[in-house]
Amino acid sequence: MRTIEWDGDAVVIVDQTALPGDLRFLTLDTVDGLVGAIRRLAVRGAPALGAAGALGVLLAVRQGEREGWGEAEVAAAVAALRAARPTAVNLAGGVDRVAARLGEGPGVIEAEARAVVEEDVAANRALAARGADLLAELCAPAERLRVHTHCNAGALACVEVGTALGVVGALHERGRLDRVYAGETRPLLQGARLTAWELGRLGADYRLVVDGAAPSLIARGLVDAVVVGADRVAANGDVANKVGTYPLALASARAGIPFVVAAPESTLDPATPDGTSIAIEDRAEDEVLAVAGTPVTPAGARALNPAFDVTPADLVTAVVTEARVVRPAAGERL
Amino acid sequence: MRTIEWDGDAVVIVDQTALPGDLRFLTLDTVDGLVGAIRRLAVRGAPALGAAGALGVLLAVRQGEREGWGEAEVAAAVAALRAARPTAVNLAGGVDRVAARLGEGPGVIEAEARAVVEEDVAANRALAARGADLLAELCAPAERLRVHTHCNAGALACVEVGTALGVVGALHERGRLDRVYAGETRPLLQGARLTAWELGRLGADYRLVVDGAAPSLIARGLVDAVVVGADRVAANGDVANKVGTYPLALASARAGIPFVVAAPESTLDPATPDGTSIAIEDRAEDEVLAVAGTPVTPAGARALNPAFDVTPADLVTAVVTEARVVRPAAGERL
Repeated sequence: MRTIEWDGDAVVIVDQTALPGDLRFLTLDTVDGLVGAIRRLAVRGAPALGAAGALGVLLAVRQGEREGWGEAEVAAAVAALRAARPTAVNLAGGVDRVAARLGEGPGVIEAEARAVVEEDVAANRALAARGADLLAELCAPAERLRVHTHCNAGALACVEVGTALGVVGALHERGRLDRVYAGETRPLLQGARLTAWELGRLGADYRLVVDGAAPSLIARGLVDAVVVGADRVAANGDVANKVGTYPLALASARAGIPFVVAAPESTLDPATPDGTSIAIEDRAEDEVLAVAGTPVTPAGARALNPAFDVTPADLVTAVVTEARVVRPAAGERL
Repeated sequence: MRTIEWDGDAVVIVDQTALPGDLRFLTLDTVDGLVGAIRRLAVRGAPALGAAGALGVLLAVRQGEREGWGEAEVAAAVAALRAARPTAVNLAGGVDRVAARLGEGPGVIEAEARAVVEEDVAANRALAARGADLLAELCAPAERLRVHTHCNAGALACVEVGTALGVVGALHERGRLDRVYAGETRPLLQGARLTAWELGRLGADYRLVVDGAAPSLIARGLVDAVVVGADRVAANGDVANKVGTYPLALASARAGIPFVVAAPESTLDPATPDGTSIAIEDRAEDEVLAVAGTPVTPAGARALNPAFDVTPADLVTAVVTEARVVRPAAGERL
């Protein structure tokens, strides 16, 4: 099953806002529809956003043909798509790669967009294997690992397979997984809704925990390694990821366990020197003030809702990609 | 308004599970009823539990008179009360102090129980003033402070005034408070429900944040100091408090801002040598699997739900009580 694909005329996505209750597919045949789906996180996760960006440019071309758009209208649609979410480098990357071929005709556009999608799947498979090797090495001599993860860096965040959860899946296939602890990931509960759903399908033993509990589980010796995804990795190894990642890195460093970031090369951004240059998206206050649709706060309550945090390079044991392992805490740069 | 008091025949509490929607009072005229209220957190917060323990012994005596209990039945009721929640030292402390007078007649019992309640209020007032002095000193030369707090260590957690939120209130009265950031405190959302309600009544500028976001706000320079309550402070300065406290201390140490624990002397437990001897209560999985009553996880999902964590002494800038300031990070013991 793929989280996002091209059906010949439209972008088809799994509606992640309906999980875990319903497995529902959305067929999006306009750029506006796709931008809306990205904004409300019906499709989310850095690698999946790369695919959404790539397929979105193809969609803009098709919608333009259908509705008689000129070059300026296609360009405006592409720009709107590119700006739908600011933190993930993959969205802009996917858009830019396909948009660069805009002069070369619809066939070339379609081939390029499809290539982005297929490359994501292949990269994730390679990343999962390399990440499982790395974790086994870092946690030796432990035979079966207890791994903590955060948010959803699984198949749902990608086209298929997953990044951090792809690594977890590879450990599970090899019989090297003891248990997964997963942070529920407030405010939108991607851990409780999506990661739990994927871990259940995988047949892995897992326990959900509230986000505030994870650092103390690490301190109590219940976790052998933390593995998370990334939305953007800067040249010096600073990592932007879902808010709540940074405390896991602090706790891992104090406990002396590895803190590993599993991310495809497309998430690495050598053009961003360090975390201070990464824009952090503030999302709507309502996501905090209501929980699963139920208001929990007194009338007039206010909230601050940053979607990401930045983990400084010195706390990042390793960034593992489909091609290599970089060790920022040891001073290595991308 | 008092969170808990004796009405002459029964213990009257504010039902904290109904806030912030309803301000509802419960009249509890049996020990069983009080134990149930403590277990489901209708009354909660370490100092309030001390008052509940003290008034609960008085309640056991009254119920015993009414129902013709012998000494053994009173003792069993007192033991059940003492065991209702294991982590907070105050509950057992309040029970033990009044139970020690059991041979001396109902008049002495009532006077002792009322003394525990009145002393809590007086201690909180002194603590609030001393804590505000300390924060002003630690954060100098800042004139108006941005303070982060967690869970609810307010009037609702005490009989009146509050501990950490009492300090915040004192800063506000002195015109020294800029803004409060409050962690929502999953799973039971005491921050979103109770602290937001108290801060609103106080007229303080505040923002709720998800628990995972607090460490990055500290890293981004948005917070001058963290102030939290405690459920138990060990002899070496290790602090047990609501789960999610430890990551705040890690982030504060890294950012170089003060991490201050505001707790009455009754919360300090010199008989517990350090955090490893503190029992951590695991609560029901359902509290994590459902949010505000709505199930959010796939069928069959599992959770781990520790209610507290332990912050090691070397991360605790200061413990401020009604009587003194102890600086565990500087090597001071209780």
